[in-house]
Amino acid sequence: MSVKVALLGFGVVGKGTYRSLTQNAAEIERKTGKKIEVKYILERRPEAINSGIAPVELFTQDFDKIVNDPEVKIVAEIIGGKELATSFMLRALKAGKHVVTPNKAVIAADYELFHKTAEENGVCIKYEASVGGAIPVIETIRNSLVANRITKVEGIVNGTTNYILTKMEEEGLSYETALKQAQANGFAEQDPTADVEGIDSANKLTILMLECFGVYVKPTELDRTGISKITRDDLRLATQHGCKLKLIARAELMDDGSVKASVKPTEVPKDSPLAAVRNEFNGILLTCNMADKIFLSGRGAGQDPTGSAMAADIVSLA
Amino acid sequence: MSVKVALLGFGVVGKGTYRSLTQNAAEIERKTGKKIEVKYILERRPEAINSGIAPVELFTQDFDKIVNDPEVKIVAEIIGGKELATSFMLRALKAGKHVVTPNKAVIAADYELFHKTAEENGVCIKYEASVGGAIPVIETIRNSLVANRITKVEGIVNGTTNYILTKMEEEGLSYETALKQAQANGFAEQDPTADVEGIDSANKLTILMLECFGVYVKPTELDRTGISKITRDDLRLATQHGCKLKLIARAELMDDGSVKASVKPTEVPKDSPLAAVRNEFNGILLTCNMADKIFLSGRGAGQDPTGSAMAADIVSLA
Repeated sequence: MSVKVALLGFGVVGKGTYRSLTQNAAEIERKTGKKIEVKYILERRPEAINSGIAPVELFTQDFDKIVNDPEVKIVAEIIGGKELATSFMLRALKAGKHVVTPNKAVIAADYELFHKTAEENGVCIKYEASVGGAIPVIETIRNSLVANRITKVEGIVNGTTNYILTKMEEEGLSYETALKQAQANGFAEQDPTADVEGIDSANKLTILMLECFGVYVKPTELDRTGISKITRDDLRLATQHGCKLKLIARAELMDDGSVKASVKPTEVPKDSPLAAVRNEFNGILLTCNMADKIFLSGRGAGQDPTGSAMAADIVSLA
Repeated sequence: MSVKVALLGFGVVGKGTYRSLTQNAAEIERKTGKKIEVKYILERRPEAINSGIAPVELFTQDFDKIVNDPEVKIVAEIIGGKELATSFMLRALKAGKHVVTPNKAVIAADYELFHKTAEENGVCIKYEASVGGAIPVIETIRNSLVANRITKVEGIVNGTTNYILTKMEEEGLSYETALKQAQANGFAEQDPTADVEGIDSANKLTILMLECFGVYVKPTELDRTGISKITRDDLRLATQHGCKLKLIARAELMDDGSVKASVKPTEVPKDSPLAAVRNEFNGILLTCNMADKIFLSGRGAGQDPTGSAMAADIVSLA
């Protein structure tokens, strides 16, 4: 018996999720004994429907059909944005379906509502793909470090800004030129505000703080500085100090139980594993009372890496 | 209701497992809702029994009492060695108890027997702590990368040899001097053969190949070269090539479905995350068809890091 899934949206991550579930179906079955079947894909754009990646008969424009189908056990939200995504996710949870999402902005903004709704309806909401793309940071915090008190989390959780800072440092580019190069290579949006001003990193830090410390602070309330004012001189100075300048999202549990958190450009010592995270890669360093330091890195974005994390959450719910 | 556990052995890792379960009991309960209770510790050495870490009334010298107690659901083997550990683990599995172990040598040598026995008795055997200590590599392969075909695994999985190579490179020490320093600092045994000749790494590579590819090759059949013949000249040459010399355990899935594997000193390019793994730390780089490259690093040995991984397996079974 296969477990039926619906994908909401068939853009970059939707395609990656579909590919991870179908191309690696044999691996999934070997490792778990489970078969996952995508029953619906909610999508209206003809270029997505006719991409040839998924059979056209899977596509629908009718969310009610999905939410009313008792066979569908898991709904993957991959349409992005805020209002519609939030509304679909809440309706799916209320219909008794598990939800998986990479949407850091909605989880960070409305965490309490999503968790309450999931709990009331006896289902789960999972969002491994929302922080660090393919990097298994939430799984590691929840399971592998379950017998640890995590005392600090420090991460490079935004690939766009890390790409820009790497190019500025290694090639001596100005901020403006590096940003243009990131845009040309698909690592930055045309409006880069959410990335370069640290808003995306703040969303992810809110989620990391929840997972590490069980503490919820709205991303808008976090101390936040982006990289748009960083100059080549700042990078040269960091080098002189034996450091690399990185946009670090950081939260630390203080002795009095409070949590100190910020997103800001930070000089990272060269021998820290975070200093070795280059270009669009992400890296997260966890400090714990038993395991000591655990470092995870990989691709923080992209079709297949993010799809791989979405698929892992789907399989674990199945 | 608490889940009852027995620890076999109260040496370094036994103490770390006990500390992880008891000192972080509140964290475990917050994250999972589970209470874990250590009911027995099998140990005869007075200095371990009277260490003050665990109440003396938990200690017993009678394995039969443990294996015949239906309340005990999970047995953690931490006595080390081979024959006695294997015998205890098989008896526990046959008595319908889950088993957790950090013992790479016994798992690598008798994997098929352990898995068959566990399956026949409807229980599980888990061994996250056997590779990379606190690093969640097995969990990542099994769960987070479930929707991936892993094509390559490369790791620094032995802290002793990495410590020696780091000291030789960074301080210009000879192999003999670096080995003596490792022994003085507790990072190498008095008889260092299993570490420096790559036997320990080969055991771990056997386990990684099983987890990544589902392929079992006995560690004694792996192509293996240790570091005991490495000279300062080899390290200087690596530096000239823009590389670091590391003892790499490596297995790659070939296009014909075969697996090519070896443990040997390898020049690693400076921009590989493996090059940044220094001293007694471990690091593992996984290459996958969806997630691309995932890198994990941390402490590969030691009381609390290994205990933390043992405790995570215990909690997941609970």
